[in-house]
Amino acid sequence: MKSWIQSANAPDCEFSPRNLPYGVFSDDDHRPRCGVAIGDMVVDLARLEAAGVVKCTDRPVFDAPALNAFMALGRTEWARTRARLIDLLTDGGDAALSSNAALRREALRPMNSVRTHMPIEVAGYTDFYASKNHAVNVGTLFRGPENALPPNWLSIPIGYNGRASTVVVSGTPFRRPLGQMKPADADLPIFGPCRRLDFELEMGAIIGTSTEMGTHLSVAQAEELVFGYVLLNDWSARDIQAWEYQPLGPFQAKVFATTISPWIVTQAALDPFRVSTPPRERPLLPYLHENGPMLYDIDLEVALAPAGGGETIVSRTNYREMYYSSAQQIAHHAIGGCRMETGDLIGSGTISGSVAGSQGSLLELTKGGRSPIDLAGGVQRSFIEDGDTITLRGRAKGDGYLVGFGACMGTVLPAPESPR
Amino acid sequence: MKSWIQSANAPDCEFSPRNLPYGVFSDDDHRPRCGVAIGDMVVDLARLEAAGVVKCTDRPVFDAPALNAFMALGRTEWARTRARLIDLLTDGGDAALSSNAALRREALRPMNSVRTHMPIEVAGYTDFYASKNHAVNVGTLFRGPENALPPNWLSIPIGYNGRASTVVVSGTPFRRPLGQMKPADADLPIFGPCRRLDFELEMGAIIGTSTEMGTHLSVAQAEELVFGYVLLNDWSARDIQAWEYQPLGPFQAKVFATTISPWIVTQAALDPFRVSTPPRERPLLPYLHENGPMLYDIDLEVALAPAGGGETIVSRTNYREMYYSSAQQIAHHAIGGCRMETGDLIGSGTISGSVAGSQGSLLELTKGGRSPIDLAGGVQRSFIEDGDTITLRGRAKGDGYLVGFGACMGTVLPAPESPR
Repeated sequence: MKSWIQSANAPDCEFSPRNLPYGVFSDDDHRPRCGVAIGDMVVDLARLEAAGVVKCTDRPVFDAPALNAFMALGRTEWARTRARLIDLLTDGGDAALSSNAALRREALRPMNSVRTHMPIEVAGYTDFYASKNHAVNVGTLFRGPENALPPNWLSIPIGYNGRASTVVVSGTPFRRPLGQMKPADADLPIFGPCRRLDFELEMGAIIGTSTEMGTHLSVAQAEELVFGYVLLNDWSARDIQAWEYQPLGPFQAKVFATTISPWIVTQAALDPFRVSTPPRERPLLPYLHENGPMLYDIDLEVALAPAGGGETIVSRTNYREMYYSSAQQIAHHAIGGCRMETGDLIGSGTISGSVAGSQGSLLELTKGGRSPIDLAGGVQRSFIEDGDTITLRGRAKGDGYLVGFGACMGTVLPAPESPR
Repeated sequence: MKSWIQSANAPDCEFSPRNLPYGVFSDDDHRPRCGVAIGDMVVDLARLEAAGVVKCTDRPVFDAPALNAFMALGRTEWARTRARLIDLLTDGGDAALSSNAALRREALRPMNSVRTHMPIEVAGYTDFYASKNHAVNVGTLFRGPENALPPNWLSIPIGYNGRASTVVVSGTPFRRPLGQMKPADADLPIFGPCRRLDFELEMGAIIGTSTEMGTHLSVAQAEELVFGYVLLNDWSARDIQAWEYQPLGPFQAKVFATTISPWIVTQAALDPFRVSTPPRERPLLPYLHENGPMLYDIDLEVALAPAGGGETIVSRTNYREMYYSSAQQIAHHAIGGCRMETGDLIGSGTISGSVAGSQGSLLELTKGGRSPIDLAGGVQRSFIEDGDTITLRGRAKGDGYLVGFGACMGTVLPAPESPR
């Protein structure tokens, strides 16, 4: 499959004609609206809709600052729109766009000239804890090796509600959080800027269609709610977390910021890359049984760049390392009757491999800060320092093409002044 | 202060002229819109706004299915609107409504003829754990007396993110949740309907005005965000909770339903009932210091009625039993830079007194189910059974008048059939 947008055909292009991820963008001329990334261009879906070249329903859905209205239309419409876009954007298809110079000029924007925005209005954000390597690594650091894996872990895709109001798009800087911490040798907690700021490499599944309260879903039905995936950095304040998280879980350690990549890669684009979850070490209850492969073979990496410095890849792993798929997580999420909503963001949990350099957090990579990692230029890091930029990247590798996620990037600014 | 709506002047009327709580209602003629409760009537604010008798800004805010637009206008507008409503609804004030028979007929609806709806669009729901009696009681049951109060409890208003999508208004029935539980004598978890379903008596503070991400607030500034309070029942599946909550907190145990009362009692109406938090048992960090009394003296009660049976009051307590105020909770919520949003719902945590019959959950009242409580008619309960209705009530007692919250009521339906 080749596109008449030549940049999309390069074998190292993340936005190949088989990808077509959705996002929200703006430029000097227009307010935020929905688009699709292909090659080094963004296709303005609002413009194509206005021209009648793309049409979902009776009312327009793409001239909006979020994809929620489009997502709510459901799977049939997602498939129909994807087929239409492939037809419009590939060689030998409908020439309504490719042969119309005026429309091309208006509807095709160079990616380097636009600004990307949050692709969705986040309804709810739920974060899971579903990579066994990560759970064992972190459990060992927080609770010791004998209590590393909680007794429920092999039976439950452990999840907790996150904070939706601080989910931001790649490129949004944020301030190091202030908070309470208790040094090991202190009797009472102290207050100040977090000293052990970390990233967490995750994938985020985005719920496209809602359910009614009181409904439960099979794993297969749960998967059908998923519109697509983004990269997700679940920034974490480890010292705040260690002091606060018992008994009700992480709160201030996580609510200050969560970064997602701007382009939602659809489930359809990821279909060729399906892989199975690993063998079960304990039988799962039937409501968590999968009827097919529901993980994806997606190479992932994390880069750290100090202020003004070049970046170093500090971790490489793969989404297939997860013990639970997002479909299993969503089936668990809804089993008690929880209503799932268009725009819900479901964090996979930190993705860690089993070998050195494949862990999805500094906490793991530096063994709780005790073994700093080396960066280019002779710099070392135990945790994130002010001015550091963390970039997540992900790509599935097809035969001669890529399905990539673009960058999920965030820079940490110094903490604000403490309150008096 | 007397109203020309005579029912409001009865000394036992919860919706006295000094209360004027806001809600959303509908009747046969009109779609959901904003109103104010007074006596046995609901004042249609959308109608008064259309008539030009009440006016907030240049654009209408009350002809909407939620109070969010009005709340977002901020404290000055809340005070101006309250003063205007008092002027319109009390003796000796502006006669624009009282003397206009046609407008009165249109804008005053008997409360027993309308349906109440969710008063707000919930942005985020956060639940706290801030009554010391409750924390000690529950901690003893879950972790034993030696670990009852977590080490951080006297320093942190412990909170966790809740699930916004299943917050429902009083009167909304819901199904008993299905889920995973692990009986004490079993090696592996079982699946089925929750067997230990509970209520939690809470107050909910509703955030009126938003903050920017990266902002922190003093306790006084945090209090200024609060538009008002509702009663809140944080339904809890104790058996699901016991098995799932380590290490990341409650999830399926809570996400199936949360019920709030339909009328938001404003902070202004509660002002005469301010009381201080109890003496600190450990000094708080300065960012949690209060500059005045920020709890309220509100009598609370919980009633349980079996299907077809009369109700029994199973608990009586008071909101002043809390160790942390909602202002302290919100200051903590924002200290790391978390953005607070119009429509955020902040659960106080279960409110329990120290004496028998004053605990805010069946878990506490029945000592983990071991000591069933007696209901009228010779019935007993350890936990909630199918068909049971739980009703929370709350009222602040002024000199010859009440500021009441109405009922926060929910009926538990049988669990759905288990998935195959």
